Amino acid sequence: MSEQNVVDSARPAAAGRTNGTNGSSVARGPVASPLVLHPDRFFDPDPAIRRVARALYEETRTLPLICPHGHVDPAILATNDAFPEPTALLVIPDHYIFRMLYSQGVPMEALGIPTRDGTVEERSPRMIWRVFASHYYLFRGTPTGIWIDAELHDVFGVKVKLTGETADRVYDEIAEKLASPEFRPRALFERFDIEVLATTDAASDLLPHHQAIRASDWAYGARRVVPTFRPDAVLRIARPSWPHELAALERAHGAPITSFEAFLAALAERRRYFQALGATATDHAVLEPWTARQTPETMEALFQQARRGEATAADQRTFEAHLLIELARLSTEDGLVMQLHPGSWRDHNAPIAARYGPDKGADIPVATEYTRNLQALLAAHGNDPRLTLILFTLDETTYARELAPLAGHYPALKLGPAWWFHDSLEGMRRYREQVTETAGVYNTVGFNDDTRAFCSIPARHDLARRVDANWLAGLVARHQLDLADARELARALAYDLARTTYKFDRT
Amino acid sequence: MSEQNVVDSARPAAAGRTNGTNGSSVARGPVASPLVLHPDRFFDPDPAIRRVARALYEETRTLPLICPHGHVDPAILATNDAFPEPTALLVIPDHYIFRMLYSQGVPMEALGIPTRDGTVEERSPRMIWRVFASHYYLFRGTPTGIWIDAELHDVFGVKVKLTGETADRVYDEIAEKLASPEFRPRALFERFDIEVLATTDAASDLLPHHQAIRASDWAYGARRVVPTFRPDAVLRIARPSWPHELAALERAHGAPITSFEAFLAALAERRRYFQALGATATDHAVLEPWTARQTPETMEALFQQARRGEATAADQRTFEAHLLIELARLSTEDGLVMQLHPGSWRDHNAPIAARYGPDKGADIPVATEYTRNLQALLAAHGNDPRLTLILFTLDETTYARELAPLAGHYPALKLGPAWWFHDSLEGMRRYREQVTETAGVYNTVGFNDDTRAFCSIPARHDLARRVDANWLAGLVARHQLDLADARELARALAYDLARTTYKFDRT
Amino acid sequence: MSEQNVVDSARPAAAGRTNGTNGSSVARGPVASPLVLHPDRFFDPDPAIRRVARALYEETRTLPLICPHGHVDPAILATNDAFPEPTALLVIPDHYIFRMLYSQGVPMEALGIPTRDGTVEERSPRMIWRVFASHYYLFRGTPTGIWIDAELHDVFGVKVKLTGETADRVYDEIAEKLASPEFRPRALFERFDIEVLATTDAASDLLPHHQAIRASDWAYGARRVVPTFRPDAVLRIARPSWPHELAALERAHGAPITSFEAFLAALAERRRYFQALGATATDHAVLEPWTARQTPETMEALFQQARRGEATAADQRTFEAHLLIELARLSTEDGLVMQLHPGSWRDHNAPIAARYGPDKGADIPVATEYTRNLQALLAAHGNDPRLTLILFTLDETTYARELAPLAGHYPALKLGPAWWFHDSLEGMRRYREQVTETAGVYNTVGFNDDTRAFCSIPARHDLARRVDANWLAGLVARHQLDLADARELARALAYDLARTTYKFDRT
Repeated sequence: MSEQNVVDSARPAAAGRTNGTNGSSVARGPVASPLVLHPDRFFDPDPAIRRVARALYEETRTLPLICPHGHVDPAILATNDAFPEPTALLVIPDHYIFRMLYSQGVPMEALGIPTRDGTVEERSPRMIWRVFASHYYLFRGTPTGIWIDAELHDVFGVKVKLTGETADRVYDEIAEKLASPEFRPRALFERFDIEVLATTDAASDLLPHHQAIRASDWAYGARRVVPTFRPDAVLRIARPSWPHELAALERAHGAPITSFEAFLAALAERRRYFQALGATATDHAVLEPWTARQTPETMEALFQQARRGEATAADQRTFEAHLLIELARLSTEDGLVMQLHPGSWRDHNAPIAARYGPDKGADIPVATEYTRNLQALLAAHGNDPRLTLILFTLDETTYARELAPLAGHYPALKLGPAWWFHDSLEGMRRYREQVTETAGVYNTVGFNDDTRAFCSIPARHDLARRVDANWLAGLVARHQLDLADARELARALAYDLARTTYKFDRT
Repeated sequence: MSEQNVVDSARPAAAGRTNGTNGSSVARGPVASPLVLHPDRFFDPDPAIRRVARALYEETRTLPLICPHGHVDPAILATNDAFPEPTALLVIPDHYIFRMLYSQGVPMEALGIPTRDGTVEERSPRMIWRVFASHYYLFRGTPTGIWIDAELHDVFGVKVKLTGETADRVYDEIAEKLASPEFRPRALFERFDIEVLATTDAASDLLPHHQAIRASDWAYGARRVVPTFRPDAVLRIARPSWPHELAALERAHGAPITSFEAFLAALAERRRYFQALGATATDHAVLEPWTARQTPETMEALFQQARRGEATAADQRTFEAHLLIELARLSTEDGLVMQLHPGSWRDHNAPIAARYGPDKGADIPVATEYTRNLQALLAAHGNDPRLTLILFTLDETTYARELAPLAGHYPALKLGPAWWFHDSLEGMRRYREQVTETAGVYNTVGFNDDTRAFCSIPARHDLARRVDANWLAGLVARHQLDLADARELARALAYDLARTTYKFDRT
Repeated sequence: MSEQNVVDSARPAAAGRTNGTNGSSVARGPVASPLVLHPDRFFDPDPAIRRVARALYEETRTLPLICPHGHVDPAILATNDAFPEPTALLVIPDHYIFRMLYSQGVPMEALGIPTRDGTVEERSPRMIWRVFASHYYLFRGTPTGIWIDAELHDVFGVKVKLTGETADRVYDEIAEKLASPEFRPRALFERFDIEVLATTDAASDLLPHHQAIRASDWAYGARRVVPTFRPDAVLRIARPSWPHELAALERAHGAPITSFEAFLAALAERRRYFQALGATATDHAVLEPWTARQTPETMEALFQQARRGEATAADQRTFEAHLLIELARLSTEDGLVMQLHPGSWRDHNAPIAARYGPDKGADIPVATEYTRNLQALLAAHGNDPRLTLILFTLDETTYARELAPLAGHYPALKLGPAWWFHDSLEGMRRYREQVTETAGVYNTVGFNDDTRAFCSIPARHDLARRVDANWLAGLVARHQLDLADARELARALAYDLARTTYKFDRT
């Protein structure tokens, strides 16, 4: 469809949208406008840029997907059960969706979110889908809107825009598809052309689903689904749940853990266990990326305090500051790539956390500092060629000020892609523009989709490939880069860098 | 005028401008270059974007102006006296203008700024106008330049560029206009097509001008000029002027205020008084948006300390931190929309404040934190559908990092438009690009002009409508949005969102 | 070469680049691709912008170079010896280059970096050049890549892209050129059309090279190379090297310095000495730009503590906070322009500093605050028309939030250009977009190259002139500015502002 046609096909604007805080739907113009994905979408309209963007995207469009960091539940691939219905697949697990609806006054209850005591007010998936569909206009101009349109169109073949009016029709269409064998998880995995998919798993996880996948007759996927070692829970010694987490670690480890030394040994052993099931990386989330070496005596004292349930938030901060250095050391020994995801204040909305539990779309970033905070870790291991430490951030001000200068110097450091709220068209553009001039492209690690929404994986990679192609096309059109170099870079960003940095080329 | 003509009409560059620190004027090339406002101004030159931008702008260009936050003096509309002459109307009240001239070495005295003891050195409006005109080149590339050009051209019909050479001619032309009935304040108000104009008023203000407007025979404007409740002065308990402010509040309230409880009751009563005269909103300026609930005992003790003239800056900080929560609570009860404008260090230039008093263009932003600071208020009232809390910022780093994630979750939160220094072409673009992908459009509240420069109101709305049309056109040209949706959004940004969020649709 | 040709000439992408941490080279496609500098490079491809950008650039392209701040070693111009060979000229002194190579796993040793005890592993310039050339692809999309391509092409006439394959050929070509008289430093200085070049020199420097240049028969350059007074070393009282620095200052001053008063007097005397050799400016680097007036007693006590070798980091912070105010005062007296370069954590990589010494590409920016920190200095001297204080930053978040509002008010303040990591295409664009709307153009000071890489000077000015021309062209194409005004501004940014602000027009 030509650009002119898109313009010409415009219908008169509907009546002004109200910005009310209730969940009511408003008449949405003609029913069933077509859902069209323009082949040049997300490219700059300038012909000199668009021409090159098309050429570069064409080089990467069909490359397999490397998914080195994400949150897909491995159970779906272990059991390969059919997805139940559209709402459970597309709405319920996606906190991007319900945070937006909640922000506009849709109650959690209307979205089927259970309270902590298990009460669920709205149990009908179709009713929840209707609420979602009638509010789908809220996602205009957002990456969620881009991803969902692409899922609907490309994965499920939906050809009408999702609105309150088309809600039922689209629901039925997807539900019918989900019942067919072609829409089972493994079939989709193959159709998505996923070369490797890393999940994210607790340190105490025995990884039964990964074992089941490996043991299954699914030849295609047996070596393509790997775990990632994320020991956050056992580092948070101030949490009431910590004794429970330690006990789980003891069970997985198969021995009591009564000293800090034993704790470290258990972590090292668990890492080997993960590696045996294909893991190439670890992941760590902290509020601040503060690192500071403590004496063995201090660490032992903190550990015993924690065991007595007496660790404070300040104790945990110190504990984590030392542990990050130890975890980097372990990586120099076992070769696991270390990922650091700092700066999210989890469960900011206290009443919501109290009523519905954690992970309800209320994680809010805080300003984050890397230059001072990482100094101790980098002094210890930053020059070690055996370490790969990938930094992520929710604080874009650190891209050009701290992260690019750090990654442009320390051999161990690499920069993860634009993360979470910034994994968007403008967010990825800002990332490239603010990182590249100091760190270059080769100190970055390509894309990762970081999603628990399995069906959104292709859409997310496609958006990233389009954005990167368009960014490189801008460099070519401004004669900063020739097309041959741009082609190599496009492929590196879409495939090579993720594959090599996460060491999937070595397995 | 076509783009080619603009290029072709170029005159040879004049001699290099000196960057001297004195106020002398320099020969400015040919006298009386034409002042031309290009119909496509502020749109990207790319034809695919410009075509859509024009179409979207055409939808919003003639919509009435909603002015929900600003600083116009209601007296001008109450008396409807003719504006005295150009300098008093356009230069003296505009701190954007004299801050720039002062920064380039023009003394305050030469601009007619009186010292605190009332001394005024330069009393001739025409002489001040000449200084302004001969330095007008300083505003190239600034929003002030855009607004003033538009005022001169569209409001006053001036057809030559303002320079030292054309100063007198332009002055005379405007002065002549100001003498005619068509340029009286109420006539301009109607000509500007202002649907509603909110002023900003102290808590102790008895609002005589608002009463006069309502009591007048000005049918058009009687219900269109409304006050806004801004109690900042009575919250700043560490200021030497606080006892005076409290006394003024007591007079307005009609009863002594000798306890914190009485203080809160007086605020609640004053809010009802404002509401009776049409107010739909309150406004609050604090250095930090810190919120923290205090015990009743603490608040009573702070209040009594303040009455004794013993409150410190730290006391005031604590007082304000609790008061913001109380004010949010009051909003849940009376329905007044709450606006928060934090982060400006007022009167940064101590010698200037000592000599000339406050508000002399020396308010400088500081880095501002929202995630931690607002947590207590949001835990108390952020999930309450009765509250609308509109956040503003002078710290653009918080757009994507804190404000959009907060507004994209909490039902009570909305984001005010790009504020003050950022109410500019690039500033508004950065705002849209950094806010929309996480918060969407519908968690923002449209435009407000925030000005005391009455005649600049149409120019400010026009710039915002052009910038938003152009931004939306970029999304359409990149196929992120179809034109029908873009049309709805353009109208929402220009009119609907401000009208509904500030509840002008309910009165 | 037309844009279409650039696209058409593309060769198929080579095999994916590995992101390994060793220094091995990879086959780089066809040997000897041509190195082409497109005449429209760095301009937006949009025809409406490009047309104007060309016109504006044509006005500034051949203007002489004003270099008011940089780090060229004056010895090269004093002796005028031939540069030894390409590696010593282009690679060794450029920390932009070896930081990137080191970040990708190339050991310092392989780059000929000596350890502190003087050990050098790789002594062959040609071998080091080969390592550099085979990793040159790392600089794709970076300003270093832009500068080096321009140096190779325009200064040395190289016509092939630098790769592992062309390394020797390019090396030989440059080496041959360097042996000829036309490539002696003074000849290049004249060929580069440098109107004035300021070096950066320690307070205790007797400036023998500047004296030699003035005493030489080099008429062209005798008054064009001037020193800059940078007393950082004698302000860092907590450094172990401070007594040594003080002793050096005493020798230069010719008298013992045993009190703080004497210390200030010595600084004032040294400034006069620099002025006599043409200096028009001072320069100051601090971690934080904190200013705070101390009592004479405090300063005397700190000074004596420092003399006893007992000053702590906190003492130094206080000492510097007061000294910055004193240095501003001295500038009001002697008229030297004051430059402030804060916010770099020097030698962040402790093991590298221990092994190889300082300045090994491990200076990392930290978040920097100006509004609160500069308040004391500005209260003392910010309204004084005799002071020019030029602020620089590595923290781009301060451009719009703090620096532009400060410079848009205080007569003494001006903003230095985008600095260091931000002296890049995107960095300069962000600077203009974030600074101009509040501070205007005339509160900025034009470009400075800030380089120790002598041969990169023309390339750096050319990039800045292109970026500024393109930025102004965007304003013209969006009808924010007419072409006549844009021409004046282009010239101001390229030449006038640096010349007048640094007072080179007065000598």
